[in-house]
Amino acid sequence: MTHPFDAAVALDATAPDTFAARTSPAYWNMVGPFGGITAATVLRAVESHPARLGEPLSLTVNYAAAVAEGPFTVQARPVRTNRSTQHWTVDILQPGPGGAPAVTTTATAVTAARRTTWSASDMPVPEAPPPETVAQRDVFRGVAWIQRYAMRPLAGALPQAWDGAESGDSLTRLWLRDEPPRPLDFAALTALCDVFYPRVWLRRALMVPAGTVSLTVYFHAGSDALAAVGSGWLLAQARAQEFRNGFFDQNAQLWNEAGRLLATSHQVVYYKE
Amino acid sequence: MTHPFDAAVALDATAPDTFAARTSPAYWNMVGPFGGITAATVLRAVESHPARLGEPLSLTVNYAAAVAEGPFTVQARPVRTNRSTQHWTVDILQPGPGGAPAVTTTATAVTAARRTTWSASDMPVPEAPPPETVAQRDVFRGVAWIQRYAMRPLAGALPQAWDGAESGDSLTRLWLRDEPPRPLDFAALTALCDVFYPRVWLRRALMVPAGTVSLTVYFHAGSDALAAVGSGWLLAQARAQEFRNGFFDQNAQLWNEAGRLLATSHQVVYYKE
Repeated sequence: MTHPFDAAVALDATAPDTFAARTSPAYWNMVGPFGGITAATVLRAVESHPARLGEPLSLTVNYAAAVAEGPFTVQARPVRTNRSTQHWTVDILQPGPGGAPAVTTTATAVTAARRTTWSASDMPVPEAPPPETVAQRDVFRGVAWIQRYAMRPLAGALPQAWDGAESGDSLTRLWLRDEPPRPLDFAALTALCDVFYPRVWLRRALMVPAGTVSLTVYFHAGSDALAAVGSGWLLAQARAQEFRNGFFDQNAQLWNEAGRLLATSHQVVYYKE
Repeated sequence: MTHPFDAAVALDATAPDTFAARTSPAYWNMVGPFGGITAATVLRAVESHPARLGEPLSLTVNYAAAVAEGPFTVQARPVRTNRSTQHWTVDILQPGPGGAPAVTTTATAVTAARRTTWSASDMPVPEAPPPETVAQRDVFRGVAWIQRYAMRPLAGALPQAWDGAESGDSLTRLWLRDEPPRPLDFAALTALCDVFYPRVWLRRALMVPAGTVSLTVYFHAGSDALAAVGSGWLLAQARAQEFRNGFFDQNAQLWNEAGRLLATSHQVVYYKE
């Protein structure tokens, strides 16, 4: 049986640099697809391209407009290929008002040949009880995509009371994996980087309208390291740095259960009021 | 007299969405322009575009190839304009082998209309002695662009001995401004986000070859707040999270002297061995 994630990021090559795709009800958010699944689809287009060399190193996705329910087109072009890196531009298009193709999403990506070098971490994994000992928390079941993830909160769970009582901290930390479990790969890891609810909700205990404007993911692991995770848990955390006049940023880190940093991610998010 | 920064980011509109520019010897790095000046030039193209609405919110620049000494072309297109955000794609082109235009740099940017909202910080400014009391350090005078910045190191200055003695920490913190002093704007702030020498040099005390692959800047201040800084000092810091098989990441923050966070920045950097 196809995992809902694989169905959601499925692409048909229809012309050079061009893929046909379709939104998935299983990853629907409030007014469009979950941003993580859109980013994963962009990355999957790069991975599927016949000219692709190397593995994903970085990805930036800009959410210019909500993708409407139904079919869409992904255009992925390799614009420069070097000895160890390859640079990509990707756009998602849907018919706009009048029927002409309009850009809903812009993106750039870099794939790279990784060689074994001196390596080290400068972001120690936080201490956390093992995932088996942490209770699942069923929160915010109102949107479909949330049900595609198992989340076991350690800190900064969704506020229990939306009473506007400001907290001094925007950190969320949790154990995280696909639901049902699915072997980890770059596309799934990309989506996992975007599962955090808006930091402004945590900081303010107010559910103000909010939406990601731009998301960046840096991959710190190759496909071997991701395959070794299998369908295991990831330790994930996110924190804001600044909330200022309608926009805040978020830094996120995702480690495997053994404490190896697999991806770091950043986003800037619109919020109202 | 024109400040060297303004000369370096000067653009001539030559056709719709198209600007002519030229590399500046004043901001030359080892094998191409300082990456910060390239990013600033990309942002300046967006700012100069007649269709531009709002102020810079985010910028991602991918360094696909070194820009060669001499003229280059900047193409900046607004691909989607919403009520409060406008999405841009930008490319830098130079004649490639054979003379056909080749992409050296890809970029995306978002400009936004900022409205006054609830605001807060989650990244307190570190304690630091006032810039007047900190000695200037003249380091690494071998490249031109370094001389365009005044730097007063507080922590993590360039290693004094390149002896391969690994340190456990990749943090650099310093007071920073343009040299000669120049009123702060978005383009200058963009370049300032990229002044940190490679974190791998600090961590390893080895000057291995390294170069930025992709840079992202999030702006947390409007033009009024930048104008209020004038030519004052910024407190800037950068730290890596992971060094792994040829690439490391870097998070950076830049505050004004009063402790307000103006920009956060991220990059992923290639390193050898």
